[in-house]
Amino acid sequence: MRIDVLSLFPEMFQVPMHDSILGKAIDNGIFDLRVTNFREFTQDKHRHVDDYPFGGGAGMLLQAQPIIDAYEHTKRAAEEDGLPVGKVILMDPAGKQFKQHDAETLSKSEHLTFICGHYEGYDERIRSIVTDEYSLGDFVLTGGELPAMVMIDALTRLIPGVLGNQQSKVEESFSTGLLEEPQYTRPADFRGMKVPEVLMNGDHKKIALWNQKEALRRTYRRRPDLIDHRKLTSIQKRLLADVRIEEEQRQAKSPQ
Amino acid sequence: MRIDVLSLFPEMFQVPMHDSILGKAIDNGIFDLRVTNFREFTQDKHRHVDDYPFGGGAGMLLQAQPIIDAYEHTKRAAEEDGLPVGKVILMDPAGKQFKQHDAETLSKSEHLTFICGHYEGYDERIRSIVTDEYSLGDFVLTGGELPAMVMIDALTRLIPGVLGNQQSKVEESFSTGLLEEPQYTRPADFRGMKVPEVLMNGDHKKIALWNQKEALRRTYRRRPDLIDHRKLTSIQKRLLADVRIEEEQRQAKSPQ
Repeated sequence: MRIDVLSLFPEMFQVPMHDSILGKAIDNGIFDLRVTNFREFTQDKHRHVDDYPFGGGAGMLLQAQPIIDAYEHTKRAAEEDGLPVGKVILMDPAGKQFKQHDAETLSKSEHLTFICGHYEGYDERIRSIVTDEYSLGDFVLTGGELPAMVMIDALTRLIPGVLGNQQSKVEESFSTGLLEEPQYTRPADFRGMKVPEVLMNGDHKKIALWNQKEALRRTYRRRPDLIDHRKLTSIQKRLLADVRIEEEQRQAKSPQ
Repeated sequence: MRIDVLSLFPEMFQVPMHDSILGKAIDNGIFDLRVTNFREFTQDKHRHVDDYPFGGGAGMLLQAQPIIDAYEHTKRAAEEDGLPVGKVILMDPAGKQFKQHDAETLSKSEHLTFICGHYEGYDERIRSIVTDEYSLGDFVLTGGELPAMVMIDALTRLIPGVLGNQQSKVEESFSTGLLEEPQYTRPADFRGMKVPEVLMNGDHKKIALWNQKEALRRTYRRRPDLIDHRKLTSIQKRLLADVRIEEEQRQAKSPQ
């Protein structure tokens, strides 16, 4: 996979994307990250990439020309290397909310381009090259670089070979649709806080049941919207019924 | 404001948090960002910060001791500097979904601590020092560093003085609850793509109406859930009625 990023701040990608797990995957040639500064493509003699909005209004807008010409350049380079031209993603508050499902789909791409704006708006005509717009959520950031890095992290970690066998419990948890159960490591007693007895007695059947029940409890408490009854096994349904009763009793005991 | 971050990868914060707008705010003393590597607090002679989970299961878990001792250290430093002890935020997929409203609340804090895990899970007892858990959305990342940076960006840009008068249209757009209308800058004709006539005729009343109508249209098309009829002015209600008719006609013409 090749990922092209168009950004005014290429240096922001240096450490976060080359450190630790993703950096190893880049070194091993599993994917290739190329960050292009679209300021290099401006035709303005002062190297400006923004201008005032038509019709007035606050702030400046990124102009179409530098971004579109930078894209034409990186697209041509990808084509010359035999890559199919992939999706062009704009990070924008008005975009579709990014979810794990999108990370899975995008992780199968051969080529992706991310356009990062800064705190300013865009000239609408930039959207003429955009195929997909994403937002991380309903919050405002100073630029598109951090959300682009978040998306790149989420999708590249799914490429076979990137994580090796470091696949985490979080992963398993997402695929079951439930939050993960509480987990404990050594010491068994940390400053008076003890690991639940059941996890230390070596009875794997009991442990598996406890894990399922506590995953259901955490999901029931925090994200009941994630519980899809059609996907629950009959054991999980019985455990969830127990959780419901226990949680109702707990709430009855400590009314807020 | 002081922001303490506990992370195994402090260098990841160097450029993204010290570049551009936020870096200037740090240089100007508007807020202070201190990243502490909790590996320095391990009591393990091999400097390990993780261990196998009790009860079996995939992966390793971050141990409670290094993180809790690192927190006690940064908390004491904050107290010595006369700061009230603030919220301790854990980035976790099971956390509350971060929204602009949370950024606004957190931007008024004097002290915040972010705990970043990596792809592994946590020993449950780490939660004994946590006051708030946040998630950016329903997707899995290799670590808590990028989402912590996203939250820090979203909340610090709201501190008075950070953005100066660079407050963007996006901001205004969020406070009205509508997406922003299409915007255009020079040239008026870019490779055959023209700026709408109304934005160039200097009639500010017409421009204001066009802006409102196109903001409503974009919101109606992409995020109808954001439209709160109780918050619309009578003019906006009339414009929205027009948008509805136009969009229904448009869809009738091009059935998919």
